[in-house]
Amino acid sequence: MSKSTVPTSVIRRLPRYYRFLGELENQGALRISSRELSERMGSTASQIRQDFNCFGCFGQQGYGYNIKELREKIGNILGVNAISPMILLGAGNLGKAIATHIDFEKRGCRLIGIFDSNPDVQGRIIGELEVKSTDLLEEFCKTEKPIAAVLCIPKTETAAAAAQLISYGIRAFWNFSHYDLKFEHSDIIVESVHLGDSLMTLAFGLHKITGESDSGR
Amino acid sequence: MSKSTVPTSVIRRLPRYYRFLGELENQGALRISSRELSERMGSTASQIRQDFNCFGCFGQQGYGYNIKELREKIGNILGVNAISPMILLGAGNLGKAIATHIDFEKRGCRLIGIFDSNPDVQGRIIGELEVKSTDLLEEFCKTEKPIAAVLCIPKTETAAAAAQLISYGIRAFWNFSHYDLKFEHSDIIVESVHLGDSLMTLAFGLHKITGESDSGR
Repeated sequence: MSKSTVPTSVIRRLPRYYRFLGELENQGALRISSRELSERMGSTASQIRQDFNCFGCFGQQGYGYNIKELREKIGNILGVNAISPMILLGAGNLGKAIATHIDFEKRGCRLIGIFDSNPDVQGRIIGELEVKSTDLLEEFCKTEKPIAAVLCIPKTETAAAAAQLISYGIRAFWNFSHYDLKFEHSDIIVESVHLGDSLMTLAFGLHKITGESDSGR
Repeated sequence: MSKSTVPTSVIRRLPRYYRFLGELENQGALRISSRELSERMGSTASQIRQDFNCFGCFGQQGYGYNIKELREKIGNILGVNAISPMILLGAGNLGKAIATHIDFEKRGCRLIGIFDSNPDVQGRIIGELEVKSTDLLEEFCKTEKPIAAVLCIPKTETAAAAAQLISYGIRAFWNFSHYDLKFEHSDIIVESVHLGDSLMTLAFGLHKITGESDSGR
């Protein structure tokens, strides 16, 4: 099965496998069985075998998987060595945190420009990049040809900014705004991070335990 | 079906439904059919009907769902009105962004304390909270009784910090470090945000389109 035919559900699990295998490699481990890996990852051994079979990685009966080999294979599927140039829009607290906290290059990307419409933050240095005015976006995209953009801008500005960026050649978004880009631009790659949704899921869990202890009193 | 028996897979979709329904309400909409909702959410009508049936919300044939009612029901299940007190550990760029960018109260939580072990950031004001020394954690937890903690600390510090916090009564973590807490503390609620994994998923999509255009040249 080629990389383009690996199911999306499997693809979404690959970064986590990749991360775990990296940890194991750092610890000096050479091989791991699907059973051990499944215990570590809170999955089942058969799920793991199925996932890896998708891209032709078969463990050896009684020996398990070669960690280095498996990690390389997953890294190649994910494209971690094919560096894609990205820009970031919105140099507020969140944008700054993303730009400084995330190791883009380890994940197949390179941050080559940061832009903000607010003159107060333009000129500031974040990481190794100077925040530029959004007026310079078109020219920058023409010459530097970024292919993706991180959106750390308010929801109300996202639709217009995305349309503009798409016209400048951007084909993918890492979207932190709560605006649903995929609906309008079905041909564009969108990976959304909804931090609020994540917090709500946690709140649900909390509500359950506090509700239970309340009723148990 | 009570809230505790709604399947986890459905629960994970509820924040998104809740968000969409809120947008519709803001736009003045009163009712929506499962078909319309599914188109908007990139899902199927039958999936949506199934999900809502789980908690006894049935659309009316030909009329669809009452948006306000449905949103309230979902909000109650998620516990958005049962405010849980939380603390945040790690007032670096990411911690600062989380503390200022996220509307905790809208999601059933309240941020009541921010802590950092670094004296350089202690005393700074983030939002309306002063960053406190982690030396004060035990005392603070005793008196203020936070139930959950946001972890924006380095991976290497996460295991020790989590164990300490659990001993102080913390029962849930919103975990931004790449440390796998669930493995050691199966009785604790953990909601992890792996930003790096998300970026890798985007990079995979990019790798696919750039790879395709390369081979097409």
